[in-house]
This record gives sequence, structure tokens and C-alpha cells, in this order.
Amino acid sequence: MHMVDIIRKKRGGGELTDAEIDAVVHGCVSGEIPDYQLSALMMAICFQGMTKRETARLTLAMAHSGDMVDLSAVGGITVDKHSTGGVGDKTSLVIVPIAAAYGVKIAKMSGRGLGHTGGTVDKMESIPGMRTALSREEFLAVVRRVGCAVIGQSGDLCPADKKLYALRDVTATVESIPLIASSIMSKKIAAGSDRILLDVKAGSGAFMKTKDDAEALAREMVEIGASVGRKTVALITNMDRPLGRAIGNALEIIEVCETLKGRGPADLTAECVELAANMIYLGERAENMKTARMLAKDAIESGAAFQKLCEMVEAQGGDADYLRDTSRFTLGHVQQDVLCPADGFITRADAEQIGRASVLLGAGRETKDSAIDFGAGIILHKNAGDAVKRGDVLATLYADGETRCEEAAPKLLQAFSFGAEPPKPEPLVLARVE
Amino acid sequence: MHMVDIIRKKRGGGELTDAEIDAVVHGCVSGEIPDYQLSALMMAICFQGMTKRETARLTLAMAHSGDMVDLSAVGGITVDKHSTGGVGDKTSLVIVPIAAAYGVKIAKMSGRGLGHTGGTVDKMESIPGMRTALSREEFLAVVRRVGCAVIGQSGDLCPADKKLYALRDVTATVESIPLIASSIMSKKIAAGSDRILLDVKAGSGAFMKTKDDAEALAREMVEIGASVGRKTVALITNMDRPLGRAIGNALEIIEVCETLKGRGPADLTAECVELAANMIYLGERAENMKTARMLAKDAIESGAAFQKLCEMVEAQGGDADYLRDTSRFTLGHVQQDVLCPADGFITRADAEQIGRASVLLGAGRETKDSAIDFGAGIILHKNAGDAVKRGDVLATLYADGETRCEEAAPKLLQAFSFGAEPPKPEPLVLARVE
Repeated sequence: MHMVDIIRKKRGGGELTDAEIDAVVHGCVSGEIPDYQLSALMMAICFQGMTKRETARLTLAMAHSGDMVDLSAVGGITVDKHSTGGVGDKTSLVIVPIAAAYGVKIAKMSGRGLGHTGGTVDKMESIPGMRTALSREEFLAVVRRVGCAVIGQSGDLCPADKKLYALRDVTATVESIPLIASSIMSKKIAAGSDRILLDVKAGSGAFMKTKDDAEALAREMVEIGASVGRKTVALITNMDRPLGRAIGNALEIIEVCETLKGRGPADLTAECVELAANMIYLGERAENMKTARMLAKDAIESGAAFQKLCEMVEAQGGDADYLRDTSRFTLGHVQQDVLCPADGFITRADAEQIGRASVLLGAGRETKDSAIDFGAGIILHKNAGDAVKRGDVLATLYADGETRCEEAAPKLLQAFSFGAEPPKPEPLVLARVE
Repeated sequence: MHMVDIIRKKRGGGELTDAEIDAVVHGCVSGEIPDYQLSALMMAICFQGMTKRETARLTLAMAHSGDMVDLSAVGGITVDKHSTGGVGDKTSLVIVPIAAAYGVKIAKMSGRGLGHTGGTVDKMESIPGMRTALSREEFLAVVRRVGCAVIGQSGDLCPADKKLYALRDVTATVESIPLIASSIMSKKIAAGSDRILLDVKAGSGAFMKTKDDAEALAREMVEIGASVGRKTVALITNMDRPLGRAIGNALEIIEVCETLKGRGPADLTAECVELAANMIYLGERAENMKTARMLAKDAIESGAAFQKLCEMVEAQGGDADYLRDTSRFTLGHVQQDVLCPADGFITRADAEQIGRASVLLGAGRETKDSAIDFGAGIILHKNAGDAVKRGDVLATLYADGETRCEEAAPKLLQAFSFGAEPPKPEPLVLARVE
């Protein structure tokens, strides 16, 4: 089997056989197939696409290219959750404890932030003592005992995907729905959970700019899940504006706590209830979505979910007193208000640009090796759709120095547009794909 | 200027700027752009194509990536000729002396054979003493004195094309008309001639399988030539069947001599007259094609062209007595007839398969480093369209041993199909593009 023939076949619109796909993934990991052939194939796939069978096979082959996590020792139905990434997206830390409060087992590996999007692992590490690098045994022990654990990626998960993704990133072959879908699903399948909940973001702050693209990606992933026996549900959620009011690591943890204490922003709370309900549904702890939604709200109101978050944080070495009294978090000692320059309505609050402003404040990473200031970030006092008056406080910036604030403030202002009429309100959840 | 942005632009169907194309070619030669980005760009070009401006710029940038031959010292109009390669294609050695006999200046660099196609340099080297590696000064001196010279490629011509072509070969990105056109034309432009005659083969034995594809390639090359001030004419010629009767190096030189002595096969003679007439026309030695055709025929009938071939061979150190008395050539000492297995008409004589049979006899190269047996090859006594009887001699094989003949004979037979009706006759020259 010659790689050049495989490339030629795909270039001509042919369907690759299972053996051909396996040979590509195997040769990618072993290094037998040179990068220049892999990148040519990726580009051909960008143009010719892949059939459902090809996509499913590629996903499985990449999942099996490294460690396959075995969660059978956890007991019960394990449910994983993945978000395609956004700005101010702290939903995982809200919904994991909600679903775990009802006995859904969650053994979740999360990523770090890069560029304008944040990462769950960074947010967790803003809690003093919190350990996000547990051994496989410790990880499973926490899940067995508490019901949930969230750690950083560990082990040799999907080396084929890691290599292909790095190559796609530098060859302009990222934007391909079957390639994105197989990349995400291969990692979820290798991570071992029985069921998968996907939060596919759509909008200016997300990778998928339109609802249609996001839905196509969601459908592809749900079908992959079904074809490999991992039931998958996807929600398409709005990322035209940041979710909640906090952007930045400690600031977002505080908002997570507020939300689980029943005092969170309405948009974040509503979206978390919807996501958590789907986790409860996937974990078979509710007969239908209506009951699942009710349970999710109950877990917040009763304090059971907040209690579960504290248990998980403590089990991972974190100091849960910070969660009970969030005034203990150290925030950026320079705090600067950004004022509203106009009267009227906020017609746009561009999530990507707001995310970039938070990076300038020190809350995110420009490159993989950048350090993070956990206390830096932004609190939005106003968001898209709000009525404003000139001089209102639009946002407060948190940083360790004034220079950073001065750099970030104009960037933040650019993210906002104002008008005389309010913008058409967009639902938080745009669609659900099962 | 980031290569990933250039790839993304082309992937999206954008038109690259001159600066972007120059940066790609420069980075390709310097090694700054890794192969995996070059191959991704080549694949994107295969799908999105290139505008005429992009193709012309790529051609010029590749031409200027290495030595540019200066033929101004030769004096007069220099005309180059390029064939896209075929089986039994010895036209260059017939038409160069014809055109040179009328004062057209030809300083031609040719290639060696590879795979099923032969190369002019190999054919010339079957003449004892013949030197195909002349210094630039010797080369130009021969052209000045004799009017023509044919040598192997020398110097650092088009290193960008060399690298890109090698990469395209292993990434299934060869089949792209703008990429093929720019590859061929960059070498012709670097080689320095004022005018260019292209022989674009179409058919089973050629790279372009259909007349339409060949014509599209020809048109692209003629336009590139025009846009860079090198007038170019292309003939689309039939390569569904081998040209002439001889395949193999010394055998083809003998056929060249026979043709220039007025005793060549009708198909080869007719096609050479047409090609030579175009060279005479491009060299402005005839006012129109009709006169040019007459002159070409005259040069054969008068013996002037054969005389010119002998002069050129002698100027390059070859023993022209072999041309005057071709019985002096040493041919394969094993000669085996292949008999016709059926009555009727030859409906197909597949040039590619016949070429492969000649490689088995030792006449060609499997890889770049294979040795060649100059005396090996095939004489076809019958060709497509001929009426045959079972037991007729179809072909004679020449080799240095019986094993080779036994291996080649069945391969050769597979190239032929027989039927009760003669095939539709195809013209030798399918089209002309100016």
C-alpha cells in the first residue's frame, strides 16, 4: 500500500478503505509516512471530504493510536463533556458537580487555554492547592469516591491526532468538518467514557462562525459516537457574546461558585442547566429532558451541586474554603473601570476580541509556554443587548500593573458596538443534535 | 508573509500576489519553507488552479531560481523544442538538423529516459564517441559553428522546479495543468532560447491521455510563453501508438538516419516534417507554414539535413561514419521474432506497454541509476491499423540474452489488440496552438 496512491485516490474523490485509513494513522505515528505526504492528504480531504464510514474509521484508528483509558472500574454510566471552546466558558465546572450530585460518573480530562480561549485546567489551578495532574489510579479513585474528577490530559492519548493536528495547524488544513470531528471524538473515545455531551459553540468567539457549520460539525460527531457505540448528544450554543460576566481564571471560579450558590448570571445559569440536564439524561438519571432540567435546577437550589464541587476540589488537594468564601481569592491589584462611550444599546460584544483583551491583561497565553496571572481578567457589567448610558461602567479590568490595563482597555472597547435599537435577541442554545 | 496564510488563501480560491509567489519559490530553494507546507500548497493548487498571471509569475520565479543561460552570443533567432515525452519519440534528432540546415539556431538541452519513455541524450550516446556533457563555452561554440547542438542538462537550472517536482511526484500533485505548464516552461525559459516549439503528446503512451487535456496544457504553455516574451507554438500529437517502428537507443538512431535519408517510416517522416516546419517558421526562415513544410521536405530530399546531423555529431565528438553506414551499430546479439497470434487488424498498439517491454529488454531505465543497453530494443513490423495474418512477424526483439526476450515477449503481446475491423484512423497531429 503506497501513500502516494492513497493521496491520489482521495484527491480523485475516492473512498479510502479501512486498511488504507489504518495504514495512514499507523504510518503517521511510526514516522514512516513523511509529513509532506500527510499534509497533502489532509489538504485533499479538505476538498473531497470523507464519508461517514471513513470519518468513523479515522476516529477509531486515531483513538487506538495511543492509550485507551479503561473506566470500567468506576462503576455506573460514565459521561464525558467537551466544549469546542469559547470566551468566559466555565460551564464544565458548573455542570460536572450538578450531574455528579445525581450519581452520574464523570472522569474528565480538560485542556489549558491558548490564544483568546480559556481552559478548564488553568481555571482550576487558580484554587490554591488544586492538583490537576493525578496518576491514573488517583484519578479513578477520586471518581469512584466523589463521583467526578477533572484533570489535565495525561498519558499518551491519541498521538496520531496530536501529530496530525500540529501539522494541520501549519498547513491551513484545520477547517474541515470530518477532520475536526474525528480529532475531537478520537480523544473522547480514548478517554473512556460511555456517553459524550458536546457543547459546540457558534458565533464570532467560536471556531464555527455560523449555526449551520456548528450544526454540521455536531451532527458528524453525534454520528461518529453512534457508529462506535458511544451515545453522543450535542448542543449548539451561542458564542457571539461572552458567557456570563467573568473572563479570567480566579474571576471565573468565583462566578462558578456564585452560579452553584444560585446567584449566577442568568445566561450562564440557564445554559448550565441545559447542559447539566443533558448530562443527567445521558447518565440515565432522568427519564426525559423535562425531568432532567428540573433535577439540574434542584441541585443548584439545594446546594447539593456546590457541595459536590467542594468535595471534588478537596479530593484533588484544593482548598475548598476559597470556594465557600470567594473573597479569599487574590485578584489583580490594579482594577480599572472602562466606561461606556455612548448612549443606547450594546449591539455587539465580540467574544473573540474580549478574549484577546483578557490575554493582554495576563489572564491567557499567547504561546504554549506563557505564564498565566490567575488574578487577571475582566468583569463585564454590561453585555450585548443591554441598555447603556454614556459614562456607565462597561467593565472592570483586573491586572498586576497599570500598563497592562492601559493596553487592554482600548482593545476591549473595540469589541463593543453601540446603537439606538437593541439587537435581535439570540437564544443561548441554538439547537440540539441527538 | 506567512506560508500558512498563503496556503489558506489558495485553499479558499484566492489569487496569490507576485510577492507571495516569489516568497514561495524563494523559500522552497532556501529550505526555509518546509516540504509539508509546499506539498499542502501544491495540493490546494491542484484543486483551485492558478490564474494566467499566477502561472506566468510562478514560471518566471522558478526560471530565475537558478542559472539563466545567455544565448545572445549565438546570433540569430534561437529556437528550442520540448516534447512531453513518449515511446519511440526520436523526432528531436530529425527536426533539429532540418531546421539548422536553414540557419535556425538550436541550443538544446535534453533529458535521459526514465520508466517507459526514452530520452534524447541516451539515444545520442549510442553513437560511439558522442559527448553530451559539454561545457557552456563548448556548447555555444558548437551552436555558433554548426548551427545546432544537443546536450544533457547542465548547470543549476531551475532548482525550485527540481525540488517541487520531486515533491509533487510523491504527493500525487503532478496532474495539474498550471503546475505542469510552469514546470516545463520554467526550464525552457532558463535554457535561453528566443522561441519555443512544444510537442504535447496525447494518448495512452503519454502523460495527457486525451486531446482535450493535451490542448489545455498546450494553451497554458503558449500563453506563458507569450506573457514572458518567448513566442511559443505547440503541436498536439498522437501517442496512442508508438511513433515510427524503432524503440531502443541505437535502433532509434538508425531510424533517425533512415528518415533523414528519405527512407523513414511514413508516420515518423510526416510528423517530423510538421514539427520541423514549425521550427523553421518560429526561426523566421519561412513566411508561412506552407513554405516551411516545403523547406522541411526539401532538406530531407536534398540530404542537407542528414549532412547537418553528421556535422553536429562530429562537432560533439561522435563518429558520423556510424550514421553514414548504420550497419556498424552493435545491436543486441539475441534477436527474437514475436509472431502475430490472430488474423484481422491491429486495433491497438499501446505505446506505454510497448515502452515497458523495451525496458525489460534493457533499452530503458527502471530507476535513475540503472544502466542502459544501447543495442537493446524493439522493431515493430506492424503497428495499429495494419492488417495482419496469424504467424506474421509482429515485432523483433533485440537484447543481450534470451531470458530478457522471454520476459519481454508476453509483455509486448499484451500491448496489442486485434479485431475484424480496422480502427478509426487518427491523425498524427491532432491540433496546433499558437
